[in-house]
Amino acid sequence: MNTYQRIVLAARPKGEVQPENFRLESLPLPSCGEGEVLVRNQFLSLDPYMRGRMSDAKSYAAPQPLDETMIGGTVGQVIESRNPRFAVGDTVVGMFGWSEIGLSDGALLRKVDTTHIPASAYLGAVGMPGMTAWYGLNHIMKPKAGETVAVSAASGAVGSVVGQLAKLQGCRVVGIAGGKEKCDYVVNELGFDGCVDYKAGNLRADLKAAAPDGIDAIFENVGGEVFDAALGRTNAFARIALCGMIAGYNGEDIPLKNARLLLTNRLLVQGFIVTEHMELWPQGLKELGQLVAAGKLKFRESVAEGLAAAPDAFIGLLKGRNFGKQLVRLS
Amino acid sequence: MNTYQRIVLAARPKGEVQPENFRLESLPLPSCGEGEVLVRNQFLSLDPYMRGRMSDAKSYAAPQPLDETMIGGTVGQVIESRNPRFAVGDTVVGMFGWSEIGLSDGALLRKVDTTHIPASAYLGAVGMPGMTAWYGLNHIMKPKAGETVAVSAASGAVGSVVGQLAKLQGCRVVGIAGGKEKCDYVVNELGFDGCVDYKAGNLRADLKAAAPDGIDAIFENVGGEVFDAALGRTNAFARIALCGMIAGYNGEDIPLKNARLLLTNRLLVQGFIVTEHMELWPQGLKELGQLVAAGKLKFRESVAEGLAAAPDAFIGLLKGRNFGKQLVRLS
Repeated sequence: MNTYQRIVLAARPKGEVQPENFRLESLPLPSCGEGEVLVRNQFLSLDPYMRGRMSDAKSYAAPQPLDETMIGGTVGQVIESRNPRFAVGDTVVGMFGWSEIGLSDGALLRKVDTTHIPASAYLGAVGMPGMTAWYGLNHIMKPKAGETVAVSAASGAVGSVVGQLAKLQGCRVVGIAGGKEKCDYVVNELGFDGCVDYKAGNLRADLKAAAPDGIDAIFENVGGEVFDAALGRTNAFARIALCGMIAGYNGEDIPLKNARLLLTNRLLVQGFIVTEHMELWPQGLKELGQLVAAGKLKFRESVAEGLAAAPDAFIGLLKGRNFGKQLVRLS
Repeated sequence: MNTYQRIVLAARPKGEVQPENFRLESLPLPSCGEGEVLVRNQFLSLDPYMRGRMSDAKSYAAPQPLDETMIGGTVGQVIESRNPRFAVGDTVVGMFGWSEIGLSDGALLRKVDTTHIPASAYLGAVGMPGMTAWYGLNHIMKPKAGETVAVSAASGAVGSVVGQLAKLQGCRVVGIAGGKEKCDYVVNELGFDGCVDYKAGNLRADLKAAAPDGIDAIFENVGGEVFDAALGRTNAFARIALCGMIAGYNGEDIPLKNARLLLTNRLLVQGFIVTEHMELWPQGLKELGQLVAAGKLKFRESVAEGLAAAPDAFIGLLKGRNFGKQLVRLS
């Protein structure tokens, strides 16, 4: 087998992402040059930020180029190495994108230990999603024990970590998720104090019931109505970590109706991108890894099988169809 | 003359404030008890926050009670004192409200020196508006020299101080104000680098021209479209101090259209109320007083004559008809 497959961006989406925005290609296996490492990717991570990259609107990151491998985090095994830092069989985390194979000089590859932590977790709770949760909670929301923390997309890769970390810090944690099944999981498996199903049609009333003392800190990664509803329950001096606004990824405006509360409740809102805080990753990943290894930080995965399934899985992710961290198994 | 006049809240406004919301009353002059101070107010300060107090919607402060003296900051002279801390003739700053006379035990009265600073300035640049500017700039916006700072309501009591302080710190300062006259004042008298007239109908384009390198920090006290336009020009990591959203004081929603930028530009938004940071007032007032005394901090006043003129002056303030700090001369 001397070919591999990858998926490139074929066309930028107009509105919702469509399968036609992607193109599956076969390429010859590259040869491993001096100092290089060849990796067979085991899992690809699908994340909402990819939707932003597919557009060429001005944003914090350069757009995904057309006809090039879609960006994405991966974990896989070294199958050939001409770099002394890596040996065949090593498990490595990288950014090889939507591709079965990756070739690298090793500079941005990170060797990970899968003795106590499954490889896929390095794309989730012990990877970028986990770090996003860790940073937002500890560096922006800074909740005190006894405070109420609200988390949107609560069953997702980021939200589930935010809530569990907040529980470990002694907070009352209220999740917001889509559907009874996700809410049950959030409460029964992850240990949140409550979870509001935004699809049930009573978002504001249900949130009031679930957070009777108001909300002191919000982790917001949905935007739109869910964000407005959470803002509407804030207590004075609440802190809001803002990372990901899926509701607006398709290019539509997401007006914030409760903007007045920013003033009247003296709120702090901080948007952030966790890759701009790399200096904190070693500390955060160490803490997250220890919690996962100790069974104190649970996570759930949705695994699509094979690279060709990635576009549908990604479209489902944007619509909230996934349940837990969305991955694609590549080998 | 053993009576004095005051204005009480007669009825809560429905929508825009009307003259009928107020009632002028005559009362007998109170007698000065042991430990008390009787003050003849010279100036009353009119400020946008009063609009909020007139409503009974949940907010950071208790609503103004009906049939009681409207809240407000005052500066005046002691006319009788049975308190050893104050002598007849002292100039004192207090919160005696819309009233010609104030009686106090002295606890919340502050004696001020009018040798180099006019009494009225203690209601403006060297009072709460000045402190609001000072706090927002130095504790939230924290601009670096060379950065671009945008200030809404730029000719007003708060905005004019924000901009001048930012200029003293080496920033490029762009004001936003209503009308050519105010904009000319902001540039020619206050020394801002530019000023956009939001009434001219080209807010976004004009702001782009005035801030070609984008905006690094915003002092926002208008809200609505002006805030959205400023957000639309932010650079990554911009900081926004939010204090006062006049555009929404009449009870209507003020949706924020550019909410997406909170994330994509990793913005920091912090709402604040300067009276919750009293520990910083001595330092701030000292700095502001020195700048005013040295002629380095200019200000302008709109003075309405006599207490009976206060309601119209206040309604004009809410509509942006004032030019500079709105005061009422009471004696």
